[in-house]
Amino acid sequence: MTSIAQTPEPPYYAVIFTSELGENTRGYAEMAERMVALAAEQPGFLGVESAREGLGVTVSYWADLEAIRVWKANAEHLVAQRLGRDKWYTHFTTRIARVERDYSKA
Amino acid sequence: MTSIAQTPEPPYYAVIFTSELGENTRGYAEMAERMVALAAEQPGFLGVESAREGLGVTVSYWADLEAIRVWKANAEHLVAQRLGRDKWYTHFTTRIARVERDYSKA
Repeated sequence: MTSIAQTPEPPYYAVIFTSELGENTRGYAEMAERMVALAAEQPGFLGVESAREGLGVTVSYWADLEAIRVWKANAEHLVAQRLGRDKWYTHFTTRIARVERDYSKA
Repeated sequence: MTSIAQTPEPPYYAVIFTSELGENTRGYAEMAERMVALAAEQPGFLGVESAREGLGVTVSYWADLEAIRVWKANAEHLVAQRLGRDKWYTHFTTRIARVERDYSKA
């Protein structure tokens, strides 16, 4: 389970990934867990927040657009993206957004 | 339960709200549901995606920053924000982000 990400002062970037799973979820949970661990090793990774309740909402945070581009092109991540598109997800949307402000109750 | 939001072509704005609940959740579920319904009535509202799995991740989409400002200042929403801060949430972070690109599997 993820908790609230401790991100630096804006600006930085967010990848908002929302998804709906089909009936075949074999191998999905392990892959999702592996992708969180692999993302955390990437240059420019700032954190990830995720929950699934029917709909899955995962937000990962990145230092800049180049870090997101490199992560999207990661070989192991490409395999996961292909499996997600072809096998696990009935629908998904990915949004790339520039975080301009934030505030917290710590 | 929310599903994937059908948003227009970027640019538009996202409010990424992540939260952790304390032990006192009396009245919380009703208020959360009411806030989703109330947000959907606001000018500039484009959609909302939400899931809770320990961590709650809610992303609402807005046409511009002015729409977000007006929603944040909504009287009934201000009451909910106060209750959230004082009573329900142990931690939360709100991030305001400009969505620059998106892609989907519809």
